[in-house]
Amino acid sequence: MTKILDGKKIADKILSSLRKKVEKEKARLKLVVFLFGKDKVNEIFAKQKEIACEKAGINFEKIFVPKSVKIKQLEKEIKKVSEDKRTSGIVLQFPFPKNFPSQKVIDLIPPKKDPDILTSENLGKFFSGELKCLPPVVKGVLYLLKESKVNIRGKKVALVGTGRLVGLPLAVFLAQKGATVLGLNKHTPDISFFTRNSDIIITGAGKRNLIKGEDIKKGAIVIDGGYSFFKGKLVGDVDTKSVLGKAKYIAQVPGGLGPLTCACLLENLFVQNCS
Amino acid sequence: MTKILDGKKIADKILSSLRKKVEKEKARLKLVVFLFGKDKVNEIFAKQKEIACEKAGINFEKIFVPKSVKIKQLEKEIKKVSEDKRTSGIVLQFPFPKNFPSQKVIDLIPPKKDPDILTSENLGKFFSGELKCLPPVVKGVLYLLKESKVNIRGKKVALVGTGRLVGLPLAVFLAQKGATVLGLNKHTPDISFFTRNSDIIITGAGKRNLIKGEDIKKGAIVIDGGYSFFKGKLVGDVDTKSVLGKAKYIAQVPGGLGPLTCACLLENLFVQNCS
Repeated sequence: MTKILDGKKIADKILSSLRKKVEKEKARLKLVVFLFGKDKVNEIFAKQKEIACEKAGINFEKIFVPKSVKIKQLEKEIKKVSEDKRTSGIVLQFPFPKNFPSQKVIDLIPPKKDPDILTSENLGKFFSGELKCLPPVVKGVLYLLKESKVNIRGKKVALVGTGRLVGLPLAVFLAQKGATVLGLNKHTPDISFFTRNSDIIITGAGKRNLIKGEDIKKGAIVIDGGYSFFKGKLVGDVDTKSVLGKAKYIAQVPGGLGPLTCACLLENLFVQNCS
Repeated sequence: MTKILDGKKIADKILSSLRKKVEKEKARLKLVVFLFGKDKVNEIFAKQKEIACEKAGINFEKIFVPKSVKIKQLEKEIKKVSEDKRTSGIVLQFPFPKNFPSQKVIDLIPPKKDPDILTSENLGKFFSGELKCLPPVVKGVLYLLKESKVNIRGKKVALVGTGRLVGLPLAVFLAQKGATVLGLNKHTPDISFFTRNSDIIITGAGKRNLIKGEDIKKGAIVIDGGYSFFKGKLVGDVDTKSVLGKAKYIAQVPGGLGPLTCACLLENLFVQNCS
């Protein structure tokens, strides 16, 4: 029997506990999300953040910027928003426009208003293991692994996809915790060979049905952290049907890592402003 | 036939080319190395840096600090040295004293005087792929891989040891370049299973004879980046004798990655001060 790791349920618990803390501290927090152009994908992700903010009693603001925005103009805008005392945290919503100097723009966010842990300063402190907050996706995975009562140390973890938002921060963190980290990507000659030999499989590839039942070993923990769109619906990287009955635990898309990552973003926002 | 990757020879080429650049720019550069206590290990590593500096026409200064140094005192000292215009770069020589707040102290070094790429700011920029300089050990491995004419993308690379000085920065960089990265450590149940399935094996464990001929596949590239002491001599992680004839290339200890890392440190020093 495969148990479903219900990320949404855990996220709701986090958010309701966060709401209590926010109320107790009488904290007036606000998350500001920049979106580049009107786009189905970034609107979905911004909406998830908006709903999470509502649940946690945190204000939310969306700022649309045209995809063709000049960097100078954007700099000015981010500076204005970040200097506003009402702003507790800023998120630049992926995807970014093409040829966008991402890190340079992200580094305009003050590290203490960066709940996504994407500024150079925060990333560097995370890398050296000295940051109080974790990148939201890392914290989200931790919650799911806690739920599945697994000890990370000594476990073989396949990361399917090693991009900077999911795979890479997880690789760093899990290696620091003593896991054997198998960082796979589209150039890996035989992904299945490695996933079949793994205790935990975490995907972040954005390719539907990339991981099937035959690609995992019996009793594995599968966390689907990918997303793409199929027939207008958000789907993950894992063919859930074929994995059911073989995996011990699975976190699916939607309702798994996504809502948890959102909740962890807001936990960071609270820690950066209220402790 | 196994070819020896002669790190020392490549390092000497780098240093002599660096000397020409330093002379052309009439640059007066100085590397300052802090050593914590008098210790065989840190003295050996400081000596290697001193010799490399001589070859490149760069001044060198060693500052001994007692292992029991109070952080306040050390802060003052690092601040004084870093504000001195004659200082081009500062290295805090590992190993550090026990219970030493490493990152906090490292972050006292201005990022532009940090050729080791260990300050949070530099690490973060490295992580996001936006830094001109690479951590010296990463650059050193790149030189060795270039010498062995291998294309990183799609290759399976076993990192034996995922510490913050060797394995972790290599994991990040190699994953960014499209390699399949297998991050192994002392908790990995069967290191040999993964190394036998790898095209490239890079060690940084500090355990003599950890990797033997039976642990690699025929034609593998082996880069020994570990160190420990045996009968008073510096030794690596690889049992070189048993690997000869099976590996295609090997970089040994001593004379492999070590001198190259030193040379790359000084390349960074030059770039941070003269471009």
